[in-house]
Amino acid sequence: MEIRLTSNEVIQLRKDDSIFSALKEAGIYLVASCGGKGTCGKCKVKVIEGNFEADSYGKLTGEEKKSGLVLACQTFPLADIRIAIPKESRLVIGDKIAISKTKDLVAYLKSYGVGLNPFVRTMSLKLPPPTITDNIGDLDRLKRALAEQGINSMGFRHGSIAAMGKTLREADWTVELAYIEDPDDGREAVSIYPSAQEGSNYGLAVDIGTTTVVVYLADLKTGEVIDIGSTYNSQIRFGDDVITRIVHATEGGGLQELKDAVVSDINTITDSLVEKHSIDPAMIQAASIAGNTTMAHIFWGLDPGSIREMPYIPELNSFPLWRASTAGLSINPEGRVYTFPCIASYVGGDIVAGVLASKMTRSEELALFMDIGTNGEIAIGNNEWIMTAACSAGPCFEGSGIKCGMRATPGAIESVIIDPVTLDPSIRVIGGGSPLGICGSGMIDAISEMLLTGIIDQKGKFLEGKSDRIRRGEDSPEYVIFSDRRLEKDIVLSEIDIENLLRAKAAVYSGISTLITEAGLAMDAIERVYVAGGFGNYLNIGKAVLIGMIPDIPEERYTFMGNTSITGAYLCLLSKELRNEAAEIASKMTYVELSVSKMFMDEYVSALFLPHTNMNLFPSVAARLMLP
Amino acid sequence: MEIRLTSNEVIQLRKDDSIFSALKEAGIYLVASCGGKGTCGKCKVKVIEGNFEADSYGKLTGEEKKSGLVLACQTFPLADIRIAIPKESRLVIGDKIAISKTKDLVAYLKSYGVGLNPFVRTMSLKLPPPTITDNIGDLDRLKRALAEQGINSMGFRHGSIAAMGKTLREADWTVELAYIEDPDDGREAVSIYPSAQEGSNYGLAVDIGTTTVVVYLADLKTGEVIDIGSTYNSQIRFGDDVITRIVHATEGGGLQELKDAVVSDINTITDSLVEKHSIDPAMIQAASIAGNTTMAHIFWGLDPGSIREMPYIPELNSFPLWRASTAGLSINPEGRVYTFPCIASYVGGDIVAGVLASKMTRSEELALFMDIGTNGEIAIGNNEWIMTAACSAGPCFEGSGIKCGMRATPGAIESVIIDPVTLDPSIRVIGGGSPLGICGSGMIDAISEMLLTGIIDQKGKFLEGKSDRIRRGEDSPEYVIFSDRRLEKDIVLSEIDIENLLRAKAAVYSGISTLITEAGLAMDAIERVYVAGGFGNYLNIGKAVLIGMIPDIPEERYTFMGNTSITGAYLCLLSKELRNEAAEIASKMTYVELSVSKMFMDEYVSALFLPHTNMNLFPSVAARLMLP
Repeated sequence: MEIRLTSNEVIQLRKDDSIFSALKEAGIYLVASCGGKGTCGKCKVKVIEGNFEADSYGKLTGEEKKSGLVLACQTFPLADIRIAIPKESRLVIGDKIAISKTKDLVAYLKSYGVGLNPFVRTMSLKLPPPTITDNIGDLDRLKRALAEQGINSMGFRHGSIAAMGKTLREADWTVELAYIEDPDDGREAVSIYPSAQEGSNYGLAVDIGTTTVVVYLADLKTGEVIDIGSTYNSQIRFGDDVITRIVHATEGGGLQELKDAVVSDINTITDSLVEKHSIDPAMIQAASIAGNTTMAHIFWGLDPGSIREMPYIPELNSFPLWRASTAGLSINPEGRVYTFPCIASYVGGDIVAGVLASKMTRSEELALFMDIGTNGEIAIGNNEWIMTAACSAGPCFEGSGIKCGMRATPGAIESVIIDPVTLDPSIRVIGGGSPLGICGSGMIDAISEMLLTGIIDQKGKFLEGKSDRIRRGEDSPEYVIFSDRRLEKDIVLSEIDIENLLRAKAAVYSGISTLITEAGLAMDAIERVYVAGGFGNYLNIGKAVLIGMIPDIPEERYTFMGNTSITGAYLCLLSKELRNEAAEIASKMTYVELSVSKMFMDEYVSALFLPHTNMNLFPSVAARLMLP
Repeated sequence: MEIRLTSNEVIQLRKDDSIFSALKEAGIYLVASCGGKGTCGKCKVKVIEGNFEADSYGKLTGEEKKSGLVLACQTFPLADIRIAIPKESRLVIGDKIAISKTKDLVAYLKSYGVGLNPFVRTMSLKLPPPTITDNIGDLDRLKRALAEQGINSMGFRHGSIAAMGKTLREADWTVELAYIEDPDDGREAVSIYPSAQEGSNYGLAVDIGTTTVVVYLADLKTGEVIDIGSTYNSQIRFGDDVITRIVHATEGGGLQELKDAVVSDINTITDSLVEKHSIDPAMIQAASIAGNTTMAHIFWGLDPGSIREMPYIPELNSFPLWRASTAGLSINPEGRVYTFPCIASYVGGDIVAGVLASKMTRSEELALFMDIGTNGEIAIGNNEWIMTAACSAGPCFEGSGIKCGMRATPGAIESVIIDPVTLDPSIRVIGGGSPLGICGSGMIDAISEMLLTGIIDQKGKFLEGKSDRIRRGEDSPEYVIFSDRRLEKDIVLSEIDIENLLRAKAAVYSGISTLITEAGLAMDAIERVYVAGGFGNYLNIGKAVLIGMIPDIPEERYTFMGNTSITGAYLCLLSKELRNEAAEIASKMTYVELSVSKMFMDEYVSALFLPHTNMNLFPSVAARLMLP
């Protein structure tokens, strides 16, 4: 028997295999925080054709069942079957392109001029066995051996030594002691295990994005990334953006639901990684977490409520090195978790991680760092000063609030070119095939092309009658980008969509210009722009300049950084010096609260224009539009 | 309706009251770790007469049911009823005699020249509320306020600040911070609560005896003991002495059972105390635990297995200040628990507590400290040195292994005088009434009287025919101390009993003489003897000397100290200086392992005689026995 995917990939199936286990064997992992017991309801797949037997439908709704959804772990094909895997069900383990990028991380870490210095370190101890005359207790014996190595203070939490007596005797008094050195708490033991035990000391670098969760499994002794995994943040089912999540968190039980969702995402990835590489999860003793302020609070089960209430003060900006068991991570319960410091309610640890990863604070060069994802954050500065702000761009570049919007995943229109004569568009779709919607970079392309070809004016309004593709939509005029008779729905961009995008790009640009002005500088002082986030991968700089979203400075000054949050998490997992540097970056960052800034409001209004009311700021665009 | 107890106390009963709740209302507390839900099976009482309805018999065995036992919480009298309360079911809360003794504890603490300095302290903090310009996070705000008071480092575990944001806002930014100052871990927050909240900061002093558990509830701000409670250590059902408990602990699941048993005992007492005094258990933020090495290990769920295996090394001699939630105590989960340091496998924290409570290490006077309970421990020394040993006296003074032996509880013969002419005994029974058995002090009395009256010889053998009361017993000759036709069984002391007691007293005496000899001193160098433990309360010094159990030195040098373990626990709950002193005592104590000492074996054999083979050591006894 075989399973055929919508991608036309074909997977062989043994009798009595569930769809879940057949896919897993073929290296296609599904989200299943229950481990495939039918209780978490996350491993949904859609059966398009073929007979099957389902042991249970778990928590699936009647509507979901009607649409053909089944739980992969509870469903057993009776013959060849064809299925579709919703992207939310997919756990990406060992993404080859992404892994290839991690090959250079050890070198990148070393390029900072620091050595490997993970925050959970190990040391070997060979203790003399007790005798009637050398009769001190086990812990005192351990402490004496430490003192002989010059270590005179070490805290021992209960969990770190609960099994010590047995371990020492079984290991013939030759053990490894894993411990942390924490600036706040001093030295503390994490675990004691036999020196003879196989396996290294491992750690996780984790990026908790509002939309996606990425995990790197790294060997703390070599710094190498062994494998990576990613999935959608399951919190999405409670809302797309941080505000709806905060609202949900402040409702009865909501905080725990959100925490459980993201922790189970990380655990599902981790469980798959350790299984794939036959690693004892107890040997993963450290995790480094980067996420925005809301994500970090929810991860630790801390109330994020005050984040959205004046004066927008989070409970924690810096996080102690709490234990993995407190977080609920499925690694060594005594393993410690480093959480990136946050700057303010809307500028979080992901940005500190990104700034660290960009090295902008190590150079005299004036740089702009921007991470435009579900939220938009920017930082401007160099090795002497750094200012930061949240742009409140809103999630429309991620597809939210846009009629045909979607995330930058397969099926999304990522690029649009409009013929200046026929005014017909040609498009490029991520992953090829028929488009399902349009993602952020596609939207920016479309708007800039519509502006260049005169389909819209500088206010973002359609010039009606200019093209057959402009039509009356339900709520406002719209331009048809793609139409296919087989599809129920055309892919369009409406005037209301464009208004939303104008507000978003204005927020980004005016955030940048406010910070630059606050610093007493002009836009062209920016010598380098680091573009981070998934969005950055597909962004066409020229077109983003054309719509006035980013400064009109030479394109060679722009550098795409990819996911800087996970890079920063990796760096701090492995280097004490870089953790200190992250703390220093956080303490140096001056946060500007744009929501109460008069200057920002003025800048914002000026930026609600294509590209801007002050065309002097966009000389290259003025030239292209042939404006005076 | 009414309940009549065997003590003839009468308790009124409302309709639909369970026996449990009627007794509780009358101030008679039963052990019920489930809170009276019928699941723990501990609140057994025996119905002697009267009709009742039982909702359930829980875990009672068929045999128990047949004997009239019911669960008090599940049993509802239908008419007047007469019951007996087994001592194991009884929780003693607010024992008036014991409480009266605690009145002087604050003065006693002060007599050490130290102030109140509990290990969980509180400080008041008034924080400025956050504003748009003063926009640091809550924890940084708290840390800033601490820094203003000169406190620049404080650790914050997750539990101590999980609800911080809400608390700060509800308390209008005016809060109390409870924290510890730990020599190992530095300063750490315990809890944050509104300054306006009612109630003080409370702590528990706990003595975990092998047989009984005693809890003092103290006000940490005044040092006063608010109330006390005690109960039998429920571990008894797994064995009477530490060895059987250790064996049980090393069998599957046994350790957890033992831990749960004693923790639920402490919790049952604590729950009753807080209910009686309307105290929020979250305001109990500290506990100080004294127990022997095995009890301390089991309390923390640590494997005590190595304690009984050569070379008898426990896992822990000193215990970090772990959290109440780790122990499972029903107080503030973040509250910290101080555990007395232990010296060796068989000289534990209860002895360190006792030595501290005796003040013997504060004086030049050479003192002997002895605690003869289920186990026997001794210490000899002064302010310059101190030696200690475990006597392995065995539990026979507690009634175990003695035909008619019992603990020193109501019904026990505590004193015996034998008429030198008629050779008939007169007895005194604890609590009056007919005797149920004989306790340690009664046994010592009986042996010394039998020796004085020539019923036994110096080897402990009966001179047959000497008295009608000497008869052939099942296994050996025996002396009938009490006979009552209504009783099924006479109360006797057999030759085998006497052999056991001789071994026990020889172990105690030879332990003392070994330590004295090791120190290069003679018995009469001992200037002061502190007798601790429940046993001490009833001990007749003269008679204990007569049988050669304790040194033949003037009686005025003996001081009865009562339960020094709980006194020490109280002292360390309230004074940092005394915790340091306890640590110093523990580090100064030289432990002598008697089980491998040749000298001890020689001394022991010499002491298996009444009073001793070397009569020069017992001049006063020689005089009374009119020996040459």
